[in-house]
Amino acid sequence: MKFLGAGIAAGLAALAASYGNGKVISETIKNMARQPEMAGQLRSTMFIGVGLIEAVPILAIVVAFLLVL
Amino acid sequence: MKFLGAGIAAGLAALAASYGNGKVISETIKNMARQPEMAGQLRSTMFIGVGLIEAVPILAIVVAFLLVL
Amino acid sequence: MKFLGAGIAAGLAALAASYGNGKVISETIKNMARQPEMAGQLRSTMFIGVGLIEAVPILAIVVAFLLVL
Amino acid sequence: MKFLGAGIAAGLAALAASYGNGKVISETIKNMARQPEMAGQLRSTMFIGVGLIEAVPILAIVVAFLLVL
Amino acid sequence: MKFLGAGIAAGLAALAASYGNGKVISETIKNMARQPEMAGQLRSTMFIGVGLIEAVPILAIVVAFLLVL
Amino acid sequence: MKFLGAGIAAGLAALAASYGNGKVISETIKNMARQPEMAGQLRSTMFIGVGLIEAVPILAIVVAFLLVL
Amino acid sequence: MKFLGAGIAAGLAALAASYGNGKVISETIKNMARQPEMAGQLRSTMFIGVGLIEAVPILAIVVAFLLVL
Amino acid sequence: MKFLGAGIAAGLAALAASYGNGKVISETIKNMARQPEMAGQLRSTMFIGVGLIEAVPILAIVVAFLLVL
Amino acid sequence: MKFLGAGIAAGLAALAASYGNGKVISETIKNMARQPEMAGQLRSTMFIGVGLIEAVPILAIVVAFLLVL
Amino acid sequence: MKFLGAGIAAGLAALAASYGNGKVISETIKNMARQPEMAGQLRSTMFIGVGLIEAVPILAIVVAFLLVL
Amino acid sequence: MKFLGAGIAAGLAALAASYGNGKVISETIKNMARQPEMAGQLRSTMFIGVGLIEAVPILAIVVAFLLVL
Amino acid sequence: MKFLGAGIAAGLAALAASYGNGKVISETIKNMARQPEMAGQLRSTMFIGVGLIEAVPILAIVVAFLLVL
Amino acid sequence: MKFLGAGIAAGLAALAASYGNGKVISETIKNMARQPEMAGQLRSTMFIGVGLIEAVPILAIVVAFLLVL
Amino acid sequence: MKFLGAGIAAGLAALAASYGNGKVISETIKNMARQPEMAGQLRSTMFIGVGLIEAVPILAIVVAFLLVL
Repeated sequence: MKFLGAGIAAGLAALAASYGNGKVISETIKNMARQPEMAGQLRSTMFIGVGLIEAVPILAIVVAFLLVL
Repeated sequence: MKFLGAGIAAGLAALAASYGNGKVISETIKNMARQPEMAGQLRSTMFIGVGLIEAVPILAIVVAFLLVL
Repeated sequence: MKFLGAGIAAGLAALAASYGNGKVISETIKNMARQPEMAGQLRSTMFIGVGLIEAVPILAIVVAFLLVL
Repeated sequence: MKFLGAGIAAGLAALAASYGNGKVISETIKNMARQPEMAGQLRSTMFIGVGLIEAVPILAIVVAFLLVL
Repeated sequence: MKFLGAGIAAGLAALAASYGNGKVISETIKNMARQPEMAGQLRSTMFIGVGLIEAVPILAIVVAFLLVL
Repeated sequence: MKFLGAGIAAGLAALAASYGNGKVISETIKNMARQPEMAGQLRSTMFIGVGLIEAVPILAIVVAFLLVL
Repeated sequence: MKFLGAGIAAGLAALAASYGNGKVISETIKNMARQPEMAGQLRSTMFIGVGLIEAVPILAIVVAFLLVL
Repeated sequence: MKFLGAGIAAGLAALAASYGNGKVISETIKNMARQPEMAGQLRSTMFIGVGLIEAVPILAIVVAFLLVL
Repeated sequence: MKFLGAGIAAGLAALAASYGNGKVISETIKNMARQPEMAGQLRSTMFIGVGLIEAVPILAIVVAFLLVL
Repeated sequence: MKFLGAGIAAGLAALAASYGNGKVISETIKNMARQPEMAGQLRSTMFIGVGLIEAVPILAIVVAFLLVL
Repeated sequence: MKFLGAGIAAGLAALAASYGNGKVISETIKNMARQPEMAGQLRSTMFIGVGLIEAVPILAIVVAFLLVL
Repeated sequence: MKFLGAGIAAGLAALAASYGNGKVISETIKNMARQPEMAGQLRSTMFIGVGLIEAVPILAIVVAFLLVL
Repeated sequence: MKFLGAGIAAGLAALAASYGNGKVISETIKNMARQPEMAGQLRSTMFIGVGLIEAVPILAIVVAFLLVL
Repeated sequence: MKFLGAGIAAGLAALAASYGNGKVISETIKNMARQPEMAGQLRSTMFIGVGLIEAVPILAIVVAFLLVL
């Protein structure tokens, strides 16, 4: 049961991070194309956002590693 | 059963935080591009919002750690 | 079975709070960008709203802690 | 089985309250920004609405506490 | 099995009431902002509607209490 | 198994009644605001509709009570 | 297993009737408001429609009663 | 297992008939309001359509009765 | 297990036929109202379509009867 | 387990055929009404399409019959 | 378990082929009506497309037959 | 359990290939009708795309055959 | 249990690759038709994108092969 | 149970990476076609984005390999 929990945690964490990142990065690309003069500021905000989004999924991956090892 | 609960809690917490953060950050990027003169105020609201959103998922991660350890 | 219940409660609570907060905060950011002169009033309503939304998920987290400990 | 029921009840109650509140509060914020002269009346209706929405989820939380304790 | 049934009944009742109330109240707020001169009549219809909506979920909560106690 | 059936029946009945009522009442409120001179006729149709909608969920609640008692 | 079947049948029947009725009645209200001179004819069609919709769910309720008693 | 099958068949049949009927009848009402001079022809097509839609769900109800009795 | 299979087959067949028929018939009614001079041809196509749609669900009902009897 | 498989195969085949046919036939009816001079060609394409769509569901029904008999 | 696998494989293959074919054929019919001078070329592309779509579901049906026989 | 895995793998592979191919081919047909002078180039891209899409589902079918045989 | 895991991994990998590829390729075809002078550059980006998308599903297929063999 | 967990983790990771990458790459292609002068900058952002998105799914694949080997 321990290993099933690890699989679910790792899978959902991957799903979560990809969903959030995909939304933010595609939004950034759309707006960089619309307003090229804002490109630098949008990209820096994107990096901060990706960092904030990946915080909790990385913790869930840690939970999965604790369950596997 | 304990470890399955930890996996579910960690996975859903990651999904939750990524969904909420992804929505807020992509909304911020869209509006920063539309109204560059509001960029600072929007970004500061975004940081407050991300902090508020991550409060409950972090608690769920704590529940998961309690179940694992 | 006790621990599975704790995991479900904590996970759904995180999902709930992130969904509600993400909706309210992104709506606030959108309208702050549209009507900058209302920014203060909207942000104060946002804080009240986030507080009201997080009331029940925090109670569910309490249920989860009671089940874990 | 008792504890699983408590977890489901608490989790769904949190989901329910956050969904309803998130909808009402974000609607209020949108309309406060559109019609600033109605802001007071909309906010008071929002408080009444949030109170009405949270009535049944609080009862479900009570059911969950009865199942835990 | 008795307690699982109580949890499902209470959770779905909370979800139901919040969904219905959230829809009606947010619709009311939107239309109060659009047509301020109808505000009183809309709000009174909202109260009747909330009462009608909560009738069946309250019955389901009663079923849940009967199953718990 | 008897009690689980009661919980499912009561929960789905609550969900059903709230969904149907929420749709009809919010539609009524929207159209009352658009056409104030039809308000009386719309509201009376709403009451008939709510009565018709709640007929089957009340029967399902009766099934749930038969299963509980 | 008998009682679980009764619960599922009653719950789905309630969901079904509410979904169908809610759709028809809200459509009727919308069109009564748009074309007040057709109100009588629309309402009579609505009553026939509600009767036709509730035929099969009532039969499913009968199946549920047969399973309970 | 026999009775669970009866419950599922009856419940899905009710869901099916209500979904199909609700769609056809609400479409009819919408178009009767738009084109009053076609009202008779649309309503007669509606009756034929409702008859055709209810054929298979009634057969599924028959299967459910065979499983119950 | 035999009877559960019959219930699932009959229920899904009812759902299938109602979904397909509901879509075709409501589309027919919408287009009869828009183009009254095509009404005869559309209705005859509708009858052929309903016959083609109900072929496979009737076969699934036959499978269900084989499983019941 | 054999009979459960037959029920699932028959039910999903019915769902599949009805979904595909319903989509094609309603699309045909919509375009026959828009462009009456293409009606013959569209209807002949519809018959070919329905034949192609029903090929695989009929095979699944055959699988179901093999499992039942 | 062997037969359940066959049922799932056959059912999902039917669902898959009908979904893909239904989408392609209805798209073809829509565009044949819009641009009658392209009708031949579109229909030949449709036949190639249907052949390509049905390749993998037929393989899944083969898997189902291997499991049944 | 081996055969259930084969059924799931084959069924999901069929669903996957049909979804992807259906999307690409219907998009191609729509754009061939809009821009007839690009028809050759679009169709060659379609063939490459269909080949790329079917790579992984064919591998999943291979997994299913390995499990069956 | 080993083989069920292989089936799930292979099936979801096929679903994943087809979803991602289908989206990218259909988007490419749409934009090649709109802007024929960009066709070469878009197609080369498409090949890179398809390669990047298929990286992780191929790894999941490798996991499935490790589980089967 | 160990192998089932590996299958779920690998499958969800593939789904996640494909969803995120598919969204970002198709968004990039759309905007490259709209604004050809931004093509280089958009493509470089796309590569960074794909790298960031694949970080967590690769970790989940690592979890799956740990569970398999």
